[in-house]
Amino acid sequence: MRTAYYVSDGTAITAEVFGHALLSLFEVEFKHITLPFVETKEQAEKVLEKIEKSFKESGERPLVFYTIVNIDVRKIVSKSVGVSYNFLDQYVAPLEKVLGVPSKPLKHRTHSIHETTYDIRIEAVNYALANDDGSNLKDFHEADIILTGVSRSGKTPTSLYLALQYGIKAANYPFTEEDMGDILKLPPTLRRFKNKLFGLTINADRLHQIRSERRANSQYSSLRQCKMELREVENLYRREHIPFLNSTTYSIEEISAKILSQTGLERRKY
Amino acid sequence: MRTAYYVSDGTAITAEVFGHALLSLFEVEFKHITLPFVETKEQAEKVLEKIEKSFKESGERPLVFYTIVNIDVRKIVSKSVGVSYNFLDQYVAPLEKVLGVPSKPLKHRTHSIHETTYDIRIEAVNYALANDDGSNLKDFHEADIILTGVSRSGKTPTSLYLALQYGIKAANYPFTEEDMGDILKLPPTLRRFKNKLFGLTINADRLHQIRSERRANSQYSSLRQCKMELREVENLYRREHIPFLNSTTYSIEEISAKILSQTGLERRKY
Repeated sequence: MRTAYYVSDGTAITAEVFGHALLSLFEVEFKHITLPFVETKEQAEKVLEKIEKSFKESGERPLVFYTIVNIDVRKIVSKSVGVSYNFLDQYVAPLEKVLGVPSKPLKHRTHSIHETTYDIRIEAVNYALANDDGSNLKDFHEADIILTGVSRSGKTPTSLYLALQYGIKAANYPFTEEDMGDILKLPPTLRRFKNKLFGLTINADRLHQIRSERRANSQYSSLRQCKMELREVENLYRREHIPFLNSTTYSIEEISAKILSQTGLERRKY
Repeated sequence: MRTAYYVSDGTAITAEVFGHALLSLFEVEFKHITLPFVETKEQAEKVLEKIEKSFKESGERPLVFYTIVNIDVRKIVSKSVGVSYNFLDQYVAPLEKVLGVPSKPLKHRTHSIHETTYDIRIEAVNYALANDDGSNLKDFHEADIILTGVSRSGKTPTSLYLALQYGIKAANYPFTEEDMGDILKLPPTLRRFKNKLFGLTINADRLHQIRSERRANSQYSSLRQCKMELREVENLYRREHIPFLNSTTYSIEEISAKILSQTGLERRKY
């Protein structure tokens, strides 16, 4: 199997995302190796040895995706026996022309604690945890968005993703049987913040499957219960004009991107 | 201000990461606009209009970073008045040569629910939440890693990041005053899983600052208490040979990358 290396003097996240996107266009399996924080010539030499070793073992030239700010380190890594992808650098000179200013490469400018939005993201994560699953109804005024839906429709992971990646304060509120009575009504706590509500829904079969993995053969996981709850929340969303999304076939990345694009919610981090 | 557009028929995450990395090399402020899920010609035409409008308003050609699988959509977006960066495509033909197979572009192959590791990541998030902050000591046998440290040393956000991004099951355990007595000893629950432990520490000044924001003028937040707790845990890490990291100047992305690289922990997702 061919090896793909992701090398950087930072986290190597940029190299990974780029490399992963490129390799996903091929129906080929790779062995992935990330080598972050390669900051000295000595470390760079060791990277060369590893790449060399992979080459010898597999007989196939490894692919090497890298973003390296330090020039000395970059020079060494660029000499590897791998097929190198230094995909950022070629754009720097043309972009300098477009912008009319020289670039000022600095290590650790992305994905670091020095990003101005870092503290906001951590605060948003703490907020999401403290306001998960209806556990706290007092701080909805601080929320950027309040996700609603039945139990296991994807609220919690989406809240966390919005917080971690975008610094968005997302609370989430689960509609439970108790809210449902004869007909599901919007609880007064939520009505006050109706403009912040975003609904999630999911196909009944999928919900039944997810709940069954947690609590098999219970009323909670029964298809009949799932169908009833979903019918109630979807009716509520329509009646109250709450924007909503069926999460069945979407990842949390996709759900989050769709929420942002549907609501126009401002993200704190790019 | 110049506008940077990130356009895709998927989440646009790849375009964002690439564009952000490139723009971070410049000390220039940009207005960022992400347009995900551009999947039809009509939607693509609307993108053109938006880019055109930004150009007219600012007098500066917007930058357009895009990854688009659908050929018709791509053709339209590529005609915008912006400065376009179709940074993936140019690598496809050369990579086909290297790999000796044709590419098979498919929409939504990255960042989608169809990634084989998707369910693993969601399960890991649920695990991290259920095993956060020493709230559950019964399921450490399932953990890939157990983060330890004093309160507010970065354990929780790091656990969540490891789960969300890498599908790693990370529990976390806070050392509290009760664990400390005369000297901090490793609780028996942790000793059983000593090979899974990874310690976090942080500078006392920074911890004092973080805790003061939560509970000002308390013993909990006092510099003296912070120093004492940190001395105890660092002594424990050294005495018990637990690998550890000072998180003070690192982001959760950096902490996570360092943990992976230091422990050799296998990630479930690339």
